[in-house]
Amino acid sequence: VYRAKGKKVAAYRAAEFIQDGMIVGLGTGSTAAFFIEALSLRYKTGLMLEGVVPSSKRSAELARLSSLPVRNLNDVDRIDITVDGADEIDSLKRMIKGGGGAHMREKILAFCSKEMVVIVDESKIVSTVGMTKLPIEILPFGATKTGTNLETLGYEGHWRAEDEVRFITENGNYIYDIPFKTPPLEPERLDQQILRIPGVLETGFFFNLAGRVVIGYENGSVSIWH
Amino acid sequence: VYRAKGKKVAAYRAAEFIQDGMIVGLGTGSTAAFFIEALSLRYKTGLMLEGVVPSSKRSAELARLSSLPVRNLNDVDRIDITVDGADEIDSLKRMIKGGGGAHMREKILAFCSKEMVVIVDESKIVSTVGMTKLPIEILPFGATKTGTNLETLGYEGHWRAEDEVRFITENGNYIYDIPFKTPPLEPERLDQQILRIPGVLETGFFFNLAGRVVIGYENGSVSIWH
Repeated sequence: VYRAKGKKVAAYRAAEFIQDGMIVGLGTGSTAAFFIEALSLRYKTGLMLEGVVPSSKRSAELARLSSLPVRNLNDVDRIDITVDGADEIDSLKRMIKGGGGAHMREKILAFCSKEMVVIVDESKIVSTVGMTKLPIEILPFGATKTGTNLETLGYEGHWRAEDEVRFITENGNYIYDIPFKTPPLEPERLDQQILRIPGVLETGFFFNLAGRVVIGYENGSVSIWH
Repeated sequence: VYRAKGKKVAAYRAAEFIQDGMIVGLGTGSTAAFFIEALSLRYKTGLMLEGVVPSSKRSAELARLSSLPVRNLNDVDRIDITVDGADEIDSLKRMIKGGGGAHMREKILAFCSKEMVVIVDESKIVSTVGMTKLPIEILPFGATKTGTNLETLGYEGHWRAEDEVRFITENGNYIYDIPFKTPPLEPERLDQQILRIPGVLETGFFFNLAGRVVIGYENGSVSIWH
């Protein structure tokens, strides 16, 4: 797997942050999958967990296969730490997520957690957030119009699809991907403008959510932003 | 039906606004139902319509039973006018909707329309918006936590339910109703604060959406705000 080494060392390093008795939120994606693997290894060798709370069916399945004690977000009294990947992160810890289409639940989970630990390989570090694209979750009702309304902001996107079948999130919605030719000057302002359009449910921008950031490199080294 | 007269005269007056060749958005609720009835009568006596676009399954069913030419929002090139009720409206045309739980689709439809005509009986006119309650559509994933996060804004709400079964919107979500003891001083600001919480999908606040407002009175008279 491309960049698997960087992802894996970041994930395994983050697993060392988990302490006995914690409730741990699980992100979604290839890096989060390495974290689930690493957490499972620690769990099987004596780490006590009050529970893990997945942000997607995929991660829930992975966690169950790894015998982790899966719990529902509605049924726990807290999330001590959530560990999740990111598609982009800049030095202000502003992120873009949603490449896997799970960002709405991931954002809820991160927001409900005492700390969100971000695990990325070095390729995810950007000078300013908005280098590639912004995934936006859109209600199917009137989606064509909502896409047109987004274009009035100056961004022409496209509906995520595979083999011409439109991608459906676990919440039953579409993903509209806005490509960036150049990063937005004020991503926070753009985010507000996008969220103001009815039919937009959530953007892939994550602001003020990241705690520690664990960066894994292909040479096996790790650096941590506090 | 309580206040049926005021609702009915407002709805019938608004139906006179509809012109040949229009595409008409249909709201949801008891007042909108009177409008569908009135529009159907006009349609059966010669009014030409390019289509009607309902904001809910209930209104779609009513429209079909009335033989109106129902179309999907994604398939029309415009909405000329949408006619819908409101739970509250003040002199700045700020509204609260969502008593019927359909406000997310209603807001999309209103936003996509050249004009939203609001039809209300006199009891819906308030001095400032926020006299009773604010319905909020919430994603089921983590809903308990999202409710707790809303409480930190100072409002303790409750999950809409009937016979202890939680109400589910047509989008598959819950409704959290926030009661107001006194109206919020800055409803626009409160709206932004609420929308910033992940898991919140849409509030019942409608700002900058109302065009003409048709008010029906129990004595059969009608007044119109332009």
